[in-house]
Amino acid sequence: MAEFMTETKQGVGAQSTGQCAGHPSGHSAGAHPLDGHEAGVILERARTSVDPELRSALESLPGSMRRVALYHFGWEQADGSPAAGNAGKAIRPALVLAAAAALGGPGARTAAVRAAAAVELIHNFTLLHDDVMDRDTTRRHRATAWTVFGDADAILAGDALQALALRLLAEDPHPASARAAARLADCVVELCAGQHADTALELCRPGDVTLDEALAMAEAKTGALLGCACALGALYAGAPEEDVEALDAFGREAGLAFQLIDDVIGIWGDPGNTGKPVGADLVARKKSLPVVAALTSGTPAAGELAELYGVPYEEGDLERTVLAVERAGGRDWAQVQAADRMARAMQELARAVSDPEAAGGLLALAEFVTRRSN
Amino acid sequence: MAEFMTETKQGVGAQSTGQCAGHPSGHSAGAHPLDGHEAGVILERARTSVDPELRSALESLPGSMRRVALYHFGWEQADGSPAAGNAGKAIRPALVLAAAAALGGPGARTAAVRAAAAVELIHNFTLLHDDVMDRDTTRRHRATAWTVFGDADAILAGDALQALALRLLAEDPHPASARAAARLADCVVELCAGQHADTALELCRPGDVTLDEALAMAEAKTGALLGCACALGALYAGAPEEDVEALDAFGREAGLAFQLIDDVIGIWGDPGNTGKPVGADLVARKKSLPVVAALTSGTPAAGELAELYGVPYEEGDLERTVLAVERAGGRDWAQVQAADRMARAMQELARAVSDPEAAGGLLALAEFVTRRSN
Repeated sequence: MAEFMTETKQGVGAQSTGQCAGHPSGHSAGAHPLDGHEAGVILERARTSVDPELRSALESLPGSMRRVALYHFGWEQADGSPAAGNAGKAIRPALVLAAAAALGGPGARTAAVRAAAAVELIHNFTLLHDDVMDRDTTRRHRATAWTVFGDADAILAGDALQALALRLLAEDPHPASARAAARLADCVVELCAGQHADTALELCRPGDVTLDEALAMAEAKTGALLGCACALGALYAGAPEEDVEALDAFGREAGLAFQLIDDVIGIWGDPGNTGKPVGADLVARKKSLPVVAALTSGTPAAGELAELYGVPYEEGDLERTVLAVERAGGRDWAQVQAADRMARAMQELARAVSDPEAAGGLLALAEFVTRRSN
Repeated sequence: MAEFMTETKQGVGAQSTGQCAGHPSGHSAGAHPLDGHEAGVILERARTSVDPELRSALESLPGSMRRVALYHFGWEQADGSPAAGNAGKAIRPALVLAAAAALGGPGARTAAVRAAAAVELIHNFTLLHDDVMDRDTTRRHRATAWTVFGDADAILAGDALQALALRLLAEDPHPASARAAARLADCVVELCAGQHADTALELCRPGDVTLDEALAMAEAKTGALLGCACALGALYAGAPEEDVEALDAFGREAGLAFQLIDDVIGIWGDPGNTGKPVGADLVARKKSLPVVAALTSGTPAAGELAELYGVPYEEGDLERTVLAVERAGGRDWAQVQAADRMARAMQELARAVSDPEAAGGLLALAEFVTRRSN
């Protein structure tokens, strides 16, 4: 993984130099020697800022849904006893706060805490529902809510989290709150479309999925909310429309880079670090981005991969499948794409935030999400 | 049914005279000779006002969810061809508009159209999800969305409708829109709690459900949104807080009366008018309000009913079950309760709207929903 990450970083640097030539203030990874520690501090601070708001939102729920929500957030066991808590990495709220700080300083960051909590509630509403639809049984190393409480309660808890998110913004007297709510609601529609597309792609025959379709799906399912998080931060900083859009684009591109690297980790990554068993996507015949790139590569290995994907997984097939994706160029393509997306993200960021110092938090987070196994 | 409705009406009149003595302007049914025609006109006008807003909201959805939503609203067939349309009676949007008009005149009614559409979107989001959870296969005389498009797409379409509803309000420049959005989001949480309680009650043993629990469930599941609809109309009329609360209480009480009568219709009503086969609730061993009243009556017939409800329905049991509910007083209780709830609704209405002329629309709708088989 270290090798891959170095490659990505080099790729980003190379692209930045080329494509960001017109932006002397363009933020290349080289200009900011960021390590996981910096992002870790930012994420920790975001959790500290947002958790009280999230807790109080969840505590306001009626009993049945409160139980499901607190379990899903990792704050309670299934029996209602307190849990150590593993509510995820808080990347989305951290992006809201970092974007607000980048464009409006510490005051804007403080003002945006409620919006950051709203984004995290939306993220978790979609996780609850996606797990029901996908019949996924594990999330953050724990049994998914529907396996513990049943489909109905997991669906209802998700519905309630969406309502809580939009209520937080409706009750927020900040002048940007209505625009933020409209944007977040729009994003929900896009997330739903992404989830639909994901399900639909999985039902297609391997040869029938184009790379554009797979990328559009990933943008809707993953990029949209990361972009929306950044845009909400910009709105709470009182940024002009074009900067709001640039921040949205920054988050979307970083989100796509994140998804590409997530898919690579799913095939070649380190399960000790990610909690995701290597090869699980291939075993489930998931049409992840490297796989679709491989399938549509027109290489001999593409044919072999299509053949493997045309039938259910058989014991011992994994190594052959991994090799086919690799020989068909799926890994290389994903790495170059991820680097390219990160370069575009940097361009968008430079467009809105000309002071590299101010952009530091967003940069650290973008680097972090595309370097998660470190 | 005609006999029962006469009873209800008399009950309402009697209660009004007694309890509304302090309100000379109290609206008894007798003071306003309303017939189904008047309500029909109001509902028709509401449909005409709200449909363009609803249509344009649904048309803004991405393809997959648009299809499910247009089908669910009865505007398209499953294959995407246009349908004559049966999007329900528009009672909730009509309540928003009538409440706005009652407290703020025609200008407020016009301003509240978007809020009325938002309420109708929320109602339909809950129907889509409830049908998935309850495995109901028929809605408005058509196959439910999940039976046609699958669980995942029905869940996603519901999620998107909630987002559309709250987006409509977030984008509405009206000064009441944020308070309306917060109130509607709160109502969603209550609706979810109501649906959870409904499912939980159905899993209880017949003897373990109290009447208070069953009434609380009905208030959350049905009363809450009718109350919220009236409250939103009041907010859009710029009404003071106490009138908003009185309108909410009016809608809740009328909603409970509606549910009580719906349950009575489910046992003794006319399937030709309601589309609901008589006795279906009993066959499914549903713990509707008259049934819970019967089960908790302490009469000998209660024991017989508990025995029947303790085992799955057997061919030929229906008549015995109907008689047991009736002999245990379930029907009488429901009718008296419905009349009582209507009387309370009238009191609340009189508290906020002192001019009977202005209250006419709300009165007509309240009468209509408790007299639906006419």
